[in-house]
Amino acid sequence: MTQTFDRTALFTLARDLLTGGGLPPEKAETVAELLIQTDEIGVTTHGISMVSYYLPELAKDLMTKEGTHAVLADNKVTLLWDGNYLPGHWVMTRALDTCMERAAEYGMAAMAIRRSHHIGCLSALTRIAADKGYVCYIATSDPSGQWVAPYGGCEPLLTPNPWAVGYPGRDHPVLIDTCASITTLSKVREHINSGTEFAHPWMLDGTGHATTDPTVINQTPKGSILPVGGADHGHKGFAMGLMVEMLTQALAGHGRVEAPTRWGANVFLQVMDPEAFGGREAFVAQVEHLNEACRNSRPIDAARPVRIPGDRAASAASRSTSGGIALPDEVLTRIRTCAAEAGLAFPDPL
Amino acid sequence: MTQTFDRTALFTLARDLLTGGGLPPEKAETVAELLIQTDEIGVTTHGISMVSYYLPELAKDLMTKEGTHAVLADNKVTLLWDGNYLPGHWVMTRALDTCMERAAEYGMAAMAIRRSHHIGCLSALTRIAADKGYVCYIATSDPSGQWVAPYGGCEPLLTPNPWAVGYPGRDHPVLIDTCASITTLSKVREHINSGTEFAHPWMLDGTGHATTDPTVINQTPKGSILPVGGADHGHKGFAMGLMVEMLTQALAGHGRVEAPTRWGANVFLQVMDPEAFGGREAFVAQVEHLNEACRNSRPIDAARPVRIPGDRAASAASRSTSGGIALPDEVLTRIRTCAAEAGLAFPDPL
Repeated sequence: MTQTFDRTALFTLARDLLTGGGLPPEKAETVAELLIQTDEIGVTTHGISMVSYYLPELAKDLMTKEGTHAVLADNKVTLLWDGNYLPGHWVMTRALDTCMERAAEYGMAAMAIRRSHHIGCLSALTRIAADKGYVCYIATSDPSGQWVAPYGGCEPLLTPNPWAVGYPGRDHPVLIDTCASITTLSKVREHINSGTEFAHPWMLDGTGHATTDPTVINQTPKGSILPVGGADHGHKGFAMGLMVEMLTQALAGHGRVEAPTRWGANVFLQVMDPEAFGGREAFVAQVEHLNEACRNSRPIDAARPVRIPGDRAASAASRSTSGGIALPDEVLTRIRTCAAEAGLAFPDPL
Repeated sequence: MTQTFDRTALFTLARDLLTGGGLPPEKAETVAELLIQTDEIGVTTHGISMVSYYLPELAKDLMTKEGTHAVLADNKVTLLWDGNYLPGHWVMTRALDTCMERAAEYGMAAMAIRRSHHIGCLSALTRIAADKGYVCYIATSDPSGQWVAPYGGCEPLLTPNPWAVGYPGRDHPVLIDTCASITTLSKVREHINSGTEFAHPWMLDGTGHATTDPTVINQTPKGSILPVGGADHGHKGFAMGLMVEMLTQALAGHGRVEAPTRWGANVFLQVMDPEAFGGREAFVAQVEHLNEACRNSRPIDAARPVRIPGDRAASAASRSTSGGIALPDEVLTRIRTCAAEAGLAFPDPL
């Protein structure tokens, strides 16, 4: 079940919760705006509901409230920042602005970021650059986490390692947002909370057997999430995971060597201007030619036509604009509790 | 069965076969050298045996013999080349040299290439840059090919879309070399030729059923190779495939819109200098920390410890240096025929 809400009311609630948690107004507004944009594109696992995870981090000073990132290296087209565990949405907004400016000048730019706090929904970020005509790639890992085993091994050593790429299409951007593991830690926790199992063997128990049981991550020896490709061809997902750890930690010169124990995000961000290669018009023509061929191709199930990543986000964004933002019950329960604890009124549904 | 040969003898044979096919000596030497390096790292499917595919292309003037690539755009850190269907190894050697020079100056560089001929084994190419301390990413697609269906669809519309990334480790580079489909067209053809089936349902028949039968690609309606993740989570491989088509064709401003019908390769190449981010020493420290944790982790099967991509290539390279290059029977049969047809002596095994 979902209920629908006015955008401004949700934004105000998110902002007030964050300022109530001690975040200065400018940072709170930036984070709240991106969380609401995330709900608008339908990724409600990473929208306003994240506030319930951020407030305890603010309370424990594990999410930095004041100050700014440090620029550790700036070579014009390559940069290295230290995010100082500041709110990831705020750090990424600045990182995107910088990389888009540089890409406009030099054709492309890339940045490695160490020690950001959680950066939220990747496609809400790549969408900002794609909407302005850029190709935007973001990968992130958390060097404090170990949830995915190397292919052929039993011990979890990597994070799920999400990566996303957004780029312009004819009507709306293509928004690829995926990760190097078959499923995410959120999905594992959802299954554990609801007492259900995965439909496919997407987990690995601590002795190396593929299983549908999400609780293996809480057992001893500790189980893990299988890499993309699973028991069958998981060397491909493992390779992808290694690549994300390299881009986000090795290029950042900070990661598992330092063995941080707090929730954090290492990030690799790259922005490219198609104008600096074969031109924007030619770029969009090629993208849309393939997209249309895919959308119009014969589906396996007539009721489920082929979709391009970003199509669903575009529909959700359009519904949110016309009819308000739909939030599911589990998000509402979580955020209502936050509001009650902060003594803030919860908006009425539309 | 394999037989082992002297490096110089194989190089000379490859070069003489290519010059015999009409390729000028400098180009033939460059292609031959890379083919032998590919055999040296154990990727014998893409080594000297490729000559048997290249000779007919040279004979039909589908692989260009004379002249050079055209520089369509040069913005210092971003470039666009037209490969003019010249031998891909030759084009890529020049592209790598250019991107490494630019990366040394600007921190990173990227190039899109349209209309190259086949570029061979990607990790033989990324290895060149990784050995010099760079991070090197290469993706390639062939806009004339349709072998992989979009996830949820029955019609093959994409190529397998290989991508590779090479980067420095402590003793030898990490060489990730994979693709967006579960398996490759070469493997499909091997199974068809030997009358065998895949161990897992890695193919999709023309009506959308997953199958182990490789012959579906020759049936009507035409079957396809499943994307990474297969019937289960193939949306991840489909997303990867779209990304490779975007990088190689949309950025190059040339691809499926032009509907080429000859064997060709569109390429995206990027080189990054870790020195322009967090530094080379810190880079290698992070890479090797994770690599060692993976190699030393508890394996599922004690007889098969976890390997890092590139470990096998490094062992093969070392064996090739000390004991000569090992070629399997199917390669020997193919290349012996070429030698006989060209009236060239075939070297004796060591």
